Parts: sequence; C-alpha cells; structure tokens
Amino acid sequence: MASLALPPQAATNARLVSASQNPHNITVNNIAANRQWRVARYPESGEAVSRDLFSWTTDAVPDPAEGEFLVRTVCLALGPAQRGYLAEATQDAFLQPVAIGDVMRGRGVGRIIKSRHPDYPDGAIFVGSLGWQDYSLQQPRGKEFVYSTRLVTEPIAPLSGELGTLGQAGATAYFGLREAGQVQANDHVLVSAAAGGLGSCAGQIARALGASNVVGIAGGPEKCLWLIDELGFNAAIDYQSQDVGERLRALFPHGIDVFFDSVGGDLLNTALGHLAMHARVAVAGFIATDYDPQAAEGPLNYRNLVSKRASMQGFVFFDYWDRYAEAAAQLRDWHRRGLLRSTEHIGEGLEQMPDALAGLFTGANRGVSICRVSPDE
Amino acid sequence: MASLALPPQAATNARLVSASQNPHNITVNNIAANRQWRVARYPESGEAVSRDLFSWTTDAVPDPAEGEFLVRTVCLALGPAQRGYLAEATQDAFLQPVAIGDVMRGRGVGRIIKSRHPDYPDGAIFVGSLGWQDYSLQQPRGKEFVYSTRLVTEPIAPLSGELGTLGQAGATAYFGLREAGQVQANDHVLVSAAAGGLGSCAGQIARALGASNVVGIAGGPEKCLWLIDELGFNAAIDYQSQDVGERLRALFPHGIDVFFDSVGGDLLNTALGHLAMHARVAVAGFIATDYDPQAAEGPLNYRNLVSKRASMQGFVFFDYWDRYAEAAAQLRDWHRRGLLRSTEHIGEGLEQMPDALAGLFTGANRGVSICRVSPDE
Repeated sequence: MASLALPPQAATNARLVSASQNPHNITVNNIAANRQWRVARYPESGEAVSRDLFSWTTDAVPDPAEGEFLVRTVCLALGPAQRGYLAEATQDAFLQPVAIGDVMRGRGVGRIIKSRHPDYPDGAIFVGSLGWQDYSLQQPRGKEFVYSTRLVTEPIAPLSGELGTLGQAGATAYFGLREAGQVQANDHVLVSAAAGGLGSCAGQIARALGASNVVGIAGGPEKCLWLIDELGFNAAIDYQSQDVGERLRALFPHGIDVFFDSVGGDLLNTALGHLAMHARVAVAGFIATDYDPQAAEGPLNYRNLVSKRASMQGFVFFDYWDRYAEAAAQLRDWHRRGLLRSTEHIGEGLEQMPDALAGLFTGANRGVSICRVSPDE
Repeated sequence: MASLALPPQAATNARLVSASQNPHNITVNNIAANRQWRVARYPESGEAVSRDLFSWTTDAVPDPAEGEFLVRTVCLALGPAQRGYLAEATQDAFLQPVAIGDVMRGRGVGRIIKSRHPDYPDGAIFVGSLGWQDYSLQQPRGKEFVYSTRLVTEPIAPLSGELGTLGQAGATAYFGLREAGQVQANDHVLVSAAAGGLGSCAGQIARALGASNVVGIAGGPEKCLWLIDELGFNAAIDYQSQDVGERLRALFPHGIDVFFDSVGGDLLNTALGHLAMHARVAVAGFIATDYDPQAAEGPLNYRNLVSKRASMQGFVFFDYWDRYAEAAAQLRDWHRRGLLRSTEHIGEGLEQMPDALAGLFTGANRGVSICRVSPDE
C-alpha cells in the first residue's frame, strides 16, 4: 500500500487531532497505521460541510477475530446522505448518526487482506461500510441499511467502478427508475440533479430502458451541455439561468411521465405542476430542503396527484440488495453496447474526503463522486 | 311527481331569479316545469358556498331527440369537488367549470320517463350527470370524468342507495382503498374526514377488507363516537380538541400502513410523520387547502416517503367505472353480512341543494350527503 499520508503528530501519540492542524501532504510508508477521519462535531443548523467537522487520527491496524476479516480500503463513495450522519439522533431519524469521536461512516470497495471467515478469502474484493479509513474489520451482513455487504465475484476494473455508474450508483438509479418510477418504453422522463452521481446514471438508464425523451436539470451551461453531448440526454434545463416551469412546459408538452427527483423543494413543486396522466415521481432524496432550515416548505402541487392519478414513491437502494446481480449484469450490458457511459469523478487520497463531501453540496463536482484511497492491487 | 317547489315568479316569466328572492316553501304541482339551480356567479377567493352563488329558474321539460332519453331526477349526490366547478377555467384545471348561467352540474340517480334510445327503456333507472334540476336529457357515455353514465339493472331501494354507501360513494372508497391504498389484511389504516361521505365508507370498507386497526379523524365528540359505536372504527381522533400527532403516535405504535386522505393540509403533513414502512397514502382530495388561499402549504413530510419506502397515489373514481359491478356486488355482500352500514344523510327537496353543498364545508353533515328530488316511483 503506497502513499500513506500521516501527519507526524498522529504517528506518535495524538489520537484526536483537529484536521486543520494537520498538513495532509506529508506521507510516510507505514502499513501498520490506520488513518481515519473521525467526526469531531456536528454542524450547526445551516452550516455547510467542511474539514472543521472532522478530526484526522491514526490507529493501529486491527486484527480480525474468528468470523471477521480485515479489508484494505481501495475506494470510498460519496453521497449527500452522508451529511445526514452528522446530527444528533432523533426518535424518528432515518439515518443513524455517527457518534462524535467515531470514524466517519462511508461505503466503499476494498480488498480482503486477512480473513478469518471461510467464505471471504484473502485477496477477494468486498463492498460494504468501510468507513473513512485505510483498514476496517468486516463481517457479512444482509440488506440492512448502510451496513449491507457483498463479495464481488467479477470485479470491475478499476475497482472504483464497483461504486460508480456500473456499480452501486448505477444500480440505485436502475432500481429507482424500474421500481419506484416504473419507467416504460416511450416515457418522457425528467431527472433532477442530473449532473450529479445518481442523476447522471438515471438519465442514461432511462434512455436505455426505452424512454423517448429524457430531460435533465442541472446548474450552469457546462453541466447542461455535458448531459446532452456526452450522456445522451435529449435536453437540459439550467436552473440557474432559466425558468424551469417555462422550460418544462416547452419540453414536456404532454407532461412528465416519470420524474426521478433527488432535489425536492421548489423544483419538485414546479415539476409536480407538469405531470402527465398516471405519472410516477420516484423520490430519491431532497437535497434542496435536507439541510436548509429556510427551505422548509412542502410541495403544494402534490394535489396534482389526484387530477393526474399520479404517484410519488420513495425508494432506498438497500431494499433491492438481493437483486444487485440483476442490475449489475444489465448495467454492464448497456455499457458494452455504448448506452451507458461511466461518469465517475475520482478524487485522490483519503485526506481529501471532507472536501469531496463538501463538494457534493456546492455543485463543484459532476458525475459519481468517488475517492481513491489505495491502489486496486 | 309530487311536491314541485316553484317560486311563483319562476312559474310565470322570470328565467333568472336570484335564489334569495324566492321563498322555497311554495310548491305547485306542475309536471311541465323543470326547476333548475343555475350558477349565478363564482365565489370570491376564500368565500364560502352559499345560496348567493346560484339562481333558481324554471324551464320547459325538454323532449328527447333520437338516441336521447329524458330522465326524471330522483336523488342528487353532493360532494366537495362540486365547489371546484364554480371557478373560471384555467389551462390546467382538473375540473371543468360550469359556465355562469348554466345549470349546476351534479351526479344523480333518476328514472327514464321518455326514451328514444333502444337500450334505455322507459321506466329504467339511470345514474349520470343529471344536474341540479328536475329533468334532464341524457345519452350513454363511457367513463369520461363527471359525465360517465350507467343503467342500473338491480336498483337499490330506496334509490338514494345508488349514490350512497352501497353505490357510488362506497365504490369510490372501495377502489381508492384497493387500488391506491393497496389495503392488506391486518393493515393499520387511518381515514381523514372519517365522518364525511367518503370517509364513513372508507373506514368500514377497510375493516371489511381485513384491516386490523382503523382509526378515523373527525371534528367533535359526537362524530367520533358515531364512528366507533355505529360504524365499527377501532378508534377516533377529534381534531378539534386533540393533538393529532400525539394521538397518532399512541394509536399507531408501529405506524400507519394506509392513509385514506381527503383533507390534505396540516393533517396530511402530520400523518406523513407517522407512516409505517411501505405505507401507502391514497389521496382522494384535499378539502383543507382546496379553497383556502391561506392554507397554501405543501406537506414537507412527504420526505418520509423515502425513509419509509412509502407512496402517495392519487385516484379518481371514474377510472374504475368499468369495474363498477365488482364494487357494487362486494359492497352489497358486506352490507348483507353486517359489515357495511349505510351512512346516507338525505335532505329533502331540490330547493335546498345550495345549503346541502355548503354543509359539506362546515362540518354540519355526517355520512354520504344526498338530496331527494322526487319519489323513487
């Protein structure tokens, strides 16, 4: 394993060191060290994600007990839901918080380097909740939310692909469109946050599933052009400079059959005003209102669900965990046939994880955001 | 036909007379007159329904042309959607307005008294859009919204039943629960506006379909007791005096599986905070926000659709018109077995139609609101 970036303090005795104290360009080659990002504090209401929320620490690499195995992190996925881990637990909380001082939770792909489980041999590729760290102890888990695991029998090369368009991100969009969205051939499909990780998969997959008109909403002309020129969207709406309602009217003269939405807020409300009969809204998330206490208004246009005999259906990828192989095979087939292009945006180094997470909320990134922590082999 | 209430002015030459000028307790026996309520003006924003919106007129009884038949109105149904006819047409309007000066639209059951259509013989019972009047010319129609018609082969006695719990109101609740709500045995079901026409059917039908816990929301202790004592609801919530959220927490410790909602607004938002996994919200309407410009806030808790993998599905009865016989047979069977009690609230006389409509919005009525216009025979 190359390029372990260890702040010198961490290598000695400091177990909790503020990230801002640590220049992260210092690397030492020390396989015995497990670098970790721990949660230092939760953000205030409305505070953006930043390094200040995390602490950079090191620990010894742990040893697996019977039934466990040690995984070296190769790549970590980034998703807006991770912001939700950084909050006090509430009774009805959907996302389990990560306790202050604990290693930040994150899904990733890694290599098993020391196994005490007969079904998970040394050298095998594993996807699960690895955390923001170099090494983690793992055990098999079912489709329990966040913790679900799988052994990868035919790995995508590079391994970042297991988290990307042909892997988990693509599979999420696939099941959301198929199950919640019930996409049919010739449907007219709208995708919000279309230049994001999930959206960039959803638009392409909707086309591959036979939708005749796929429109993406994104911020700025570069992203909009990218959707059309590179990803095969039929059209794009720049919410920063265009009137979304007017554009929807023009681009969906017969209404939206399927809306794949990760944004919520005003955008959802506007789109609900342009549904076709029997439309389906697949609700993947609501980044617009998630962490903005000012944006706390619901979509009054939900009332169009009656006039349009339409549905809104929330979905969570893990519910389809048992069917992962179906999605993976389909995604790879589309990829081979040129219908699905990888959109991974890969950052380098565990050190930049907080910045990468922050980038999901500033619109800095496009495509599926992944961080490479160590080489594939 | 007995007891035609004709204001004396109307019997002479006045074709459009303000209702407030007409004492409606004067009756004359004049079969040649067709009494009608016409729309005089649309309500202002936020204005309640009242007699002032209508004009009482008389016209000659029309003669059917080839392919038409003349129907004598026996009973008229009342529903909150009728308020929606009293508005200027908008591009995306769900409900077609009734033009100023036209006879008010309303569904009803009647008897064919003069037919020029071979399939609709004299004496047969007919359900369709009869309008607020004594007589109407009709022709068969498919399942087009509002105008759909059916010939009644095995009429319920009295004929008001065709519009009530065992007829159209019950069938609406039946399809809403079955199709949009996907009610399963042992489900825990919440019904809003439960003492209303649709709600009083929905709660009973949910029980008949095997739901193990059916809770109704209604205004005031009398209605709440009525739900429990007479209609077999397991519990009721008095939204006027109780904290709905607290009561939902107590009555649905494992969450709401199906919410049959005609109210919307704050109530919907609160209920969305108490969904069980894979819950279904059957959206029948939204009387709370329909005509109140102040209540224009959407349900922010729609976001729970994701954490609960839940759905909201709008439905309109007319979509299931082709399956009416299925519902009718099932409803009658439940009725025979004591599982479904008729809840019709029957007003007497065409004259009181505006008051009956207004009563839907003031909570004055309970059960399915129907007006008897003439005797069955």
